[in-house]
Amino acid sequence: MGKATNITWHEGKVTKEERQKLKGHKSAVLWFTGLSGAGKSTLSVAVEQALYNRGIHTYILDGDNVRHGLNNNLGFSHEDRKENIRRIGEVSKLFVDAGIMALTAFISPYRDDRDLVRRLVKDGEFIEIYVKCSLSECERRDPKGLYKKARSGEIKGFTGIDAPYEAPKHPELVIETDRQPLEDSAAQVIHYLEEKGYIKKQA
Amino acid sequence: MGKATNITWHEGKVTKEERQKLKGHKSAVLWFTGLSGAGKSTLSVAVEQALYNRGIHTYILDGDNVRHGLNNNLGFSHEDRKENIRRIGEVSKLFVDAGIMALTAFISPYRDDRDLVRRLVKDGEFIEIYVKCSLSECERRDPKGLYKKARSGEIKGFTGIDAPYEAPKHPELVIETDRQPLEDSAAQVIHYLEEKGYIKKQA
Repeated sequence: MGKATNITWHEGKVTKEERQKLKGHKSAVLWFTGLSGAGKSTLSVAVEQALYNRGIHTYILDGDNVRHGLNNNLGFSHEDRKENIRRIGEVSKLFVDAGIMALTAFISPYRDDRDLVRRLVKDGEFIEIYVKCSLSECERRDPKGLYKKARSGEIKGFTGIDAPYEAPKHPELVIETDRQPLEDSAAQVIHYLEEKGYIKKQA
Repeated sequence: MGKATNITWHEGKVTKEERQKLKGHKSAVLWFTGLSGAGKSTLSVAVEQALYNRGIHTYILDGDNVRHGLNNNLGFSHEDRKENIRRIGEVSKLFVDAGIMALTAFISPYRDDRDLVRRLVKDGEFIEIYVKCSLSECERRDPKGLYKKARSGEIKGFTGIDAPYEAPKHPELVIETDRQPLEDSAAQVIHYLEEKGYIKKQA
């Protein structure tokens, strides 16, 4: 049985380059960082849709699929938050190695943590996208009612209220979601990926 | 800027089904389990090559990319070994969600640990492949010299020597690497994937 299937292979594992070739584009992690309510998740979804429509192979890592899975044994201590970002970084690296354009949508407030992820991958594979929005606007939006709880003291250590957000110093992109519509923000990311040669320009 | 790029999208994230459609095949985790030296790694590489040659999007999780990355803060205690497999399972789940045919090559000696991974994903998404090989043959091969060290007592708790290997009770596939050449073993896996409709049969 099975002998009829003709199988040939060269030595060793399929390489990152071979996987990228199969997919027709380069791979990298689009690391969206910013305050709660700044629009990281919304923007990452819009960018993913735009990429998918062009046949780009993507995957979003976010609270939904990471906090309840891989990182379900982590709490909210400083140490656990660090480990949370480290694991997300390591998984992003695996996705980049797999040839996938990975998108992550986490507040990731600390510069050190984000820089650790940057160092995990090769030059050009970490695209830090600062999703910038004023605290007052984030608080006005308050999509999950978290700012209200933070202000009332129901939630402690909330980024922007009683915990710091360390804005990126040299992000690859700054997207000001309180100054332009979502369409333009998504287009800004796509434009960057085209200009830098990650994906092909559309005819 | 960027406004010239025409972006359209529907609500919500791209779905698993959309990603599978883009890739042209179903996704699942091929979980290779067996003794050290049984041929898990060799077989997974051969299967990956065969899949790649057919345009299937794959990724191998193994000691090389997991132990030194995501799981570099785990040791070899019983608890850490359990957590090792759990994390690999959760990452496999993310890859399956991403539409990728994930292959894992870990001894994963405990039935409970493997069953936990099986329950993480949907029916049909966990393909347990028992890479079967007699202990004497594994020990004869001893590609990393580990059996020698285990026999001399240099390594403690080595699977098959002084730690148990719990063979799968109902694996999707049993591959006897001490009874057939690698080509036939790889063909057996490919044949299974074709027959069950994960990948298209070749014309």
